[in-house]
Amino acid sequence: MMVLVTYDVNTQDAEGRRRLRQVAKACVNVGQRVQNSVFECKLDPLQFAQLKKHIDGIIDSNKDSVRYYRLGNNWTNRVEHVGVKETYNPEGTLII
Amino acid sequence: MMVLVTYDVNTQDAEGRRRLRQVAKACVNVGQRVQNSVFECKLDPLQFAQLKKHIDGIIDSNKDSVRYYRLGNNWTNRVEHVGVKETYNPEGTLII
Repeated sequence: MMVLVTYDVNTQDAEGRRRLRQVAKACVNVGQRVQNSVFECKLDPLQFAQLKKHIDGIIDSNKDSVRYYRLGNNWTNRVEHVGVKETYNPEGTLII
Repeated sequence: MMVLVTYDVNTQDAEGRRRLRQVAKACVNVGQRVQNSVFECKLDPLQFAQLKKHIDGIIDSNKDSVRYYRLGNNWTNRVEHVGVKETYNPEGTLII
């Protein structure tokens, strides 16, 4: 299933900037960055649980916010993009 | 239907900061801000078309990025939130 991960990490101090990098890294490892703090991640239920656990261990829940939107399987026709950095389609053909 | 609006606006100049304020304002008028640049907007098809047209007229499509995710109607069980600023539930009871 496709899971959309969006987050706001408080970067007012160095600790926050470190948390931001770590959350981004956790998402980059399992998904596609489509905007600065928005990732599209194709995950099975176990991978999703592992990602949430990993991110739970990174963020400061008093300062940061993370949202997960389960878009299901036929998600591609539910997304519209305007402007720069159109995302690749994980199911699309990769032209090398 | 619930539409999730996420955006990245290039704020390197005053013009970009103005666009950011205008996009946020366009979304605040029709939805709930759940993160800095993430809004949940309950819209009918006409309202959705009007919002897209409005935002199209604001952004610089060479610099900014806007994504619309149609979450459908039974969206509430597809969203999980961790951390600060839990969003209100537009269908929830409003306690005054």
